[in-house]
Amino acid sequence: MYTLEEIDRILENCVKLQHISREPANLYEPLDYMMSIGGKRIRPKLCLLTYNLLSDDLNNAILFPAMALEIFHEFTLIHDDIMDRSDTRRGCPTVYRKWNENVAILSGDAMSILAYRYLSYAPEKVLPQALDLFSETAMQVCEGQQYDMDFEDLPFITREDYLEMIGLKTAVLVACSAKMGALIAGAPAEACEALYRFGYQLGIAFQITDDYLDTFGNEKVFGKKIGGDIVNNKKTWLLVESLRRADGDRKQQLENLMLLGEEARSEKVPAVRSLYIDLGVKEAAEAEILVYHRKAMEALSGAGFAPEQTRYLEQFAEALIHREK
Amino acid sequence: MYTLEEIDRILENCVKLQHISREPANLYEPLDYMMSIGGKRIRPKLCLLTYNLLSDDLNNAILFPAMALEIFHEFTLIHDDIMDRSDTRRGCPTVYRKWNENVAILSGDAMSILAYRYLSYAPEKVLPQALDLFSETAMQVCEGQQYDMDFEDLPFITREDYLEMIGLKTAVLVACSAKMGALIAGAPAEACEALYRFGYQLGIAFQITDDYLDTFGNEKVFGKKIGGDIVNNKKTWLLVESLRRADGDRKQQLENLMLLGEEARSEKVPAVRSLYIDLGVKEAAEAEILVYHRKAMEALSGAGFAPEQTRYLEQFAEALIHREK
Repeated sequence: MYTLEEIDRILENCVKLQHISREPANLYEPLDYMMSIGGKRIRPKLCLLTYNLLSDDLNNAILFPAMALEIFHEFTLIHDDIMDRSDTRRGCPTVYRKWNENVAILSGDAMSILAYRYLSYAPEKVLPQALDLFSETAMQVCEGQQYDMDFEDLPFITREDYLEMIGLKTAVLVACSAKMGALIAGAPAEACEALYRFGYQLGIAFQITDDYLDTFGNEKVFGKKIGGDIVNNKKTWLLVESLRRADGDRKQQLENLMLLGEEARSEKVPAVRSLYIDLGVKEAAEAEILVYHRKAMEALSGAGFAPEQTRYLEQFAEALIHREK
Repeated sequence: MYTLEEIDRILENCVKLQHISREPANLYEPLDYMMSIGGKRIRPKLCLLTYNLLSDDLNNAILFPAMALEIFHEFTLIHDDIMDRSDTRRGCPTVYRKWNENVAILSGDAMSILAYRYLSYAPEKVLPQALDLFSETAMQVCEGQQYDMDFEDLPFITREDYLEMIGLKTAVLVACSAKMGALIAGAPAEACEALYRFGYQLGIAFQITDDYLDTFGNEKVFGKKIGGDIVNNKKTWLLVESLRRADGDRKQQLENLMLLGEEARSEKVPAVRSLYIDLGVKEAAEAEILVYHRKAMEALSGAGFAPEQTRYLEQFAEALIHREK
């Protein structure tokens, strides 16, 4: 079996090799740019890790589909950044800003097609299932993004709404990544399903962690300004839970703070952050992340593999929720 | 074999059946809307016609992939309308206008995924080839659209530039549609390639006809205002050829007219239209359409089918270039 570091190196090599220098430049340069500004490569990594439970043969039939997951993820980010009017990603200008909106739309479209091209390298006997899994997931990601945008206009949402939305927007792609590796390696159906559930619960834990770090992360390590979600009144786990818990004065205080805009950032962010702490929401989030992590571990232990086999997946899951950025 | 009218009815039925009433509404309503505002269904029709050269069995393994071509085409239109800031299509508001830009981006994305879902119904033994053909084509369409946008900023382009651009933006998808039907029906490779070439030449003829009708079509029949391309200085076959032919006074006249904007429409359109006629470009376009039509017929006759078999394809090709809208 490969270690996590070896998997990282193999993936970085794949990223370098898929550099496309084709015409027209305006279509292909943004693709290379997005890939080059990095990222944790969670989805392809998870795919290779689950594949590695059954096989050490890291050939094109698994490497290309693993990269398909990353390329698809990057495609969603390019389009999300247009829809959210985001200026930066990972500390760099978004494609929408670095080029323009039309370039971002079209190069995103090209990325989604490229993802399917790479997925098509999956072995013929599992290709129909790999396609179904990927397409179902891709559609769900669109649904999740639509719900996320719809929610912006609502004064509040329930925890169930939030979980459904992040389930679609984030968790299904992590789940798909976990299942895809096993599928391509020829794992039995029950193992594939267990790994899907593992990925899904891990995806939920990951997103809640993401929400948590945006407010409680260490700015130097995090790589971006703390509190962006607070400024934008983004319906994070923290905000959803706070709106649920707060009443009387604190509710009024929170609602007043939500009326403040970007220009009042230096007042709004610390105030909301304190309110989260006062309401016990910071600790609740930490506990919730652990709940989903545990659900992920339970799913993993039911997948039919020995602990020696799943140890890298466990380390991977640990690192994902105990990360600092 | 099915007649053209029977194929039309089968396709309309498919369009009705693929109505999607799923949540969230903002994601799926635009899909249904785009399908409902009609269109000539050229691409799925061509796919069924070439399939029908070898088989009468119009089952899901061909109907879904045929619809995939239409859905993919509609996806490109939704995104193109954002990038071109178009308000109307087929006399109706564009998705971008009827909803908003974010909805248009995301529902377009969902359509491109849906296209792949439908394509996946192709028979397993040709699925890898069908995917490769579709993905290669889809990528080329993006390239064509990028070139089209790049060309807007250039004072002129050559006829070769124009042909390359419409080859990518329009002709390859018509070619793919023609080849796809044959591929799914299990036609020999040479027949598939000949039908691809047939579709490609027909696609070029179709696009030049499109350019021609925008200036010289009958407005009542055409369904939209004549001269939109002239107003926008779109690099149509007519404009490209006129810039090539005009010199001295006429060149100056054309360049001056190109400086006029939307507000001078009632002056600009008849003036440019007259210049096209004076320069002999109207007749040259009519001749050029027939040249590509003939190339298409030559390719078709080399595909290995008897005239009785290909007669519907010939009628289809005729109707495409002698249409009025």
